[in-house]
Amino acid sequence: MRLYTCTGAPSPRRVTAFVAEKGMAIETVEVDLRSGEHLSDEFQARSPECTVPVLDLDGGECLWNTVAIRQYLEEIQPEPALLGRDAAERARITQWVSWLEHNGFLAAAEAFRNAAAGMKDHALPGRRPVPQIEALAERGRLRFGFFLEDLDRRLADSAHVAGPEFSVADLDAFIVLEFGLRVTKLSIEPWEQLSAWHQRMAERPSLRD
Amino acid sequence: MRLYTCTGAPSPRRVTAFVAEKGMAIETVEVDLRSGEHLSDEFQARSPECTVPVLDLDGGECLWNTVAIRQYLEEIQPEPALLGRDAAERARITQWVSWLEHNGFLAAAEAFRNAAAGMKDHALPGRRPVPQIEALAERGRLRFGFFLEDLDRRLADSAHVAGPEFSVADLDAFIVLEFGLRVTKLSIEPWEQLSAWHQRMAERPSLRD
Repeated sequence: MRLYTCTGAPSPRRVTAFVAEKGMAIETVEVDLRSGEHLSDEFQARSPECTVPVLDLDGGECLWNTVAIRQYLEEIQPEPALLGRDAAERARITQWVSWLEHNGFLAAAEAFRNAAAGMKDHALPGRRPVPQIEALAERGRLRFGFFLEDLDRRLADSAHVAGPEFSVADLDAFIVLEFGLRVTKLSIEPWEQLSAWHQRMAERPSLRD
Repeated sequence: MRLYTCTGAPSPRRVTAFVAEKGMAIETVEVDLRSGEHLSDEFQARSPECTVPVLDLDGGECLWNTVAIRQYLEEIQPEPALLGRDAAERARITQWVSWLEHNGFLAAAEAFRNAAAGMKDHALPGRRPVPQIEALAERGRLRFGFFLEDLDRRLADSAHVAGPEFSVADLDAFIVLEFGLRVTKLSIEPWEQLSAWHQRMAERPSLRD
């Protein structure tokens, strides 16, 4: 088994932090996103969207979706459980991970990809040229602000993102905050519950990169 | 257990078709999206994003995410298995469902929400006003065309969307096609593999509405 990753990029970190929490040892291969290595024919054969992370299961099959990779790893090494311990908890964690993707990661990605000079014609992942939309960069920043407000409210009701227990949703929330705050230049300082939770999470070795 | 749904809308159909495949009997409640019932305080208490479907588990807890609802239903009634039968198959199905969400449903939703007269200031789900972006409606249409091309290529390699067996990914692909083709006025006719698969799927009672 081999994990294709890129240190510093948010999506592969969603897997590497998960692997660290599990205490698993998986061989990793660095993919150079700056030079466009992920857009090569060779890499696209592993990952049709030309994205990292990719988990090569050996025998030719690759998983190229973050949530799918973690689901697979949880099944082959259930402890410590990061995706829930019963049907309702597992569904709740799936729900919050999806919420973080749509409201956090996508908002930050919209803000980043539609504004960064290096992302010209790469407003979406993949090889097809997709031009930037300035209004979408602005909207991404606006949405990320809504996201901070909503996440703060959630953490007023719940010790962790998906419920009383720590889960993969906390990893994702921490990772998207680091990415989105950098991109949008927003701050979590006005958000009391979010700031307190963030401080607790920053102590986890898996998130200390 | 009670399912809040809206007949004709694509997201709740992802659950009602799943329930039909399982042969489950779940009490349903129609939510009137046209009159804005989903934007009420009462409904938001069940679904923070003001979206359907919602599964009320009784005892006060609601699931308001399509994928989470189906994961829960699969756990309480495993047969027929629609989310896979082993770790690799389950991960592969998760991966393709996510791919369909990001490349199919989101593309169609961008095309629809940023152009429809009734969606003015509702370019995103939820209660906060979000103005339409004309260029994003156009990009949604473009992306949906890429999606048809990619799905056709996938179905040249694979009898079903997520692999050799029928799964929930086929339900989602069928549902997003019906929604996205209506919105974009594109056609699957030029896509041979996609058309053949679509014809087979249209025979399933769960997709005959």
